[in-house]
Amino acid sequence: MSIDGGEFDYINWIRGQTRSHDAVPLGIGDDAAAVRIPSADDCLVAVDMLMEGTHFTIPAASAEQIGRKALAVNLSDIAAMAGRPTFALVSVALNRRHGNEFAQKLFVGLKQLADEFDVALIGGDTNIWDGPLVISVTVMGEATGSGSVTRSDAQIGDWILATGRFGGSLVGKQFTFQPRVREALELQHAVSLHAMIDVSDGLAADLLHILDESKVGAILNADAIPISDAARMADDGRSPLAHALADGEDFELLFTVTADEGRRLIDNPPVAVELTKIGEIVEARTRVLIDEAGQQLPLTRTGWEHSF
Amino acid sequence: MSIDGGEFDYINWIRGQTRSHDAVPLGIGDDAAAVRIPSADDCLVAVDMLMEGTHFTIPAASAEQIGRKALAVNLSDIAAMAGRPTFALVSVALNRRHGNEFAQKLFVGLKQLADEFDVALIGGDTNIWDGPLVISVTVMGEATGSGSVTRSDAQIGDWILATGRFGGSLVGKQFTFQPRVREALELQHAVSLHAMIDVSDGLAADLLHILDESKVGAILNADAIPISDAARMADDGRSPLAHALADGEDFELLFTVTADEGRRLIDNPPVAVELTKIGEIVEARTRVLIDEAGQQLPLTRTGWEHSF
Repeated sequence: MSIDGGEFDYINWIRGQTRSHDAVPLGIGDDAAAVRIPSADDCLVAVDMLMEGTHFTIPAASAEQIGRKALAVNLSDIAAMAGRPTFALVSVALNRRHGNEFAQKLFVGLKQLADEFDVALIGGDTNIWDGPLVISVTVMGEATGSGSVTRSDAQIGDWILATGRFGGSLVGKQFTFQPRVREALELQHAVSLHAMIDVSDGLAADLLHILDESKVGAILNADAIPISDAARMADDGRSPLAHALADGEDFELLFTVTADEGRRLIDNPPVAVELTKIGEIVEARTRVLIDEAGQQLPLTRTGWEHSF
Repeated sequence: MSIDGGEFDYINWIRGQTRSHDAVPLGIGDDAAAVRIPSADDCLVAVDMLMEGTHFTIPAASAEQIGRKALAVNLSDIAAMAGRPTFALVSVALNRRHGNEFAQKLFVGLKQLADEFDVALIGGDTNIWDGPLVISVTVMGEATGSGSVTRSDAQIGDWILATGRFGGSLVGKQFTFQPRVREALELQHAVSLHAMIDVSDGLAADLLHILDESKVGAILNADAIPISDAARMADDGRSPLAHALADGEDFELLFTVTADEGRRLIDNPPVAVELTKIGEIVEARTRVLIDEAGQQLPLTRTGWEHSF
């Protein structure tokens, strides 16, 4: 395997690492891949690009971590639609100095996660240059149950729920997070999900995406927000709550369901991961955070506005 | 529209430029796009990444040219399978210094070509950094006629045909080329295409891809190779034939059919673009170029080896 000799050896090496797959009549090695789509009606596609210096630095992040994350953020996007990921394509600009071993490990990190979620790697485009590492992954998937869950169907009276805990992802979770694919399917099976998003920009910012797209408002309870240990231990002058609302890259699911179904989920959680009610959907003009003292503060992309 | 204010305004601007589409229940603006696939059996996907300094330089290439090319190379990949392109996703790392107008024009160049081929832009990922411009486009498509045409089905006795002319693409064709989507569909309708590829690496290199994948050989006739005016006018000490065989980025179709069907195509071309027979498929050990003097020379990735 050599990236020095051009892109061809690396591609052949990758080709040797991928198994044949019934749903992939034509995988890596032709001008395009050909795949069989389980359901032609609702095929999901997402793409995300990670750039060195923006989304990770080297050597702080290992090649395996970068490869894994490049796929994981896309799996999280498919999870946010309550979809099942099926195929992935990778385009990459490798830095010449990083060498062969780095390129191999990047692929290994990605491939291990792909195998874990039964996602077939069907194609890509490998380039080598002297610039920073850039990796773009496209993931296809299929809708499940009653169909894709969008950001735009939150209803007034809905409960707002979230999986897991928030804040401090920079300490480690930004690379180690588990895309909530299985959890989304379990939730989709248990209840009627109204709106859902994966938290990448930040809990507050992503809730605002749901509110904008659904044309509704929300009351968020600061007391109820599940805060990660990493956020609690942060020692940078910002409160754990501020970290939880603004940090992002938690890659947890944020979703809304009717109050009845919300109660049912809290009482009998269908998922192994922590489920928390953090607020309620209200009419469009109200977007507030109720703080620990019971004060209503305007909700913003980065958390809240202080009223003086 | 502002890229300075973050990625959000740019995405909203792009969203305003895209029309709704029956086959796209969910386009730009959610975690993933949802599309209806015309045929679930043979869904084509290709991805290509273009990098500043490698595939283009700025300002030698305009924003529109870069945007157009990023999609065009992918349409050419789908054409090489005799597929019909349907959807595109774009992930991009924009350089902050290039500014808003550049970002808009990049999109306009891409969108105009997408409209021309009835390809719906369904999603993407927009990033801004201080590094070189990187753009990765994923194109989906559907197989047509008797199915995808691969690189691996060339048969001994086949004629090797090509559309258009070769060499000198650096002078301009690398940006202005027309992806041979319609021509591939017309050929697929007229005959049984055995193997096909689009010429990106170079006529010789891409023919070798077909030979490798099909486990066959070829005799190429130097006299028959259609050479572009740009290659004829090159004044760098390399012959027009050397340019035609090695330059690449011609994005013409190179394909094989039975001798009978080859004759039929030459006599009654179903396409408006020039069609030329440039050689024949033979048993695997033979890979030669017959030069103007009738000499057999070993065929290589960059053309031929001189025998001394």
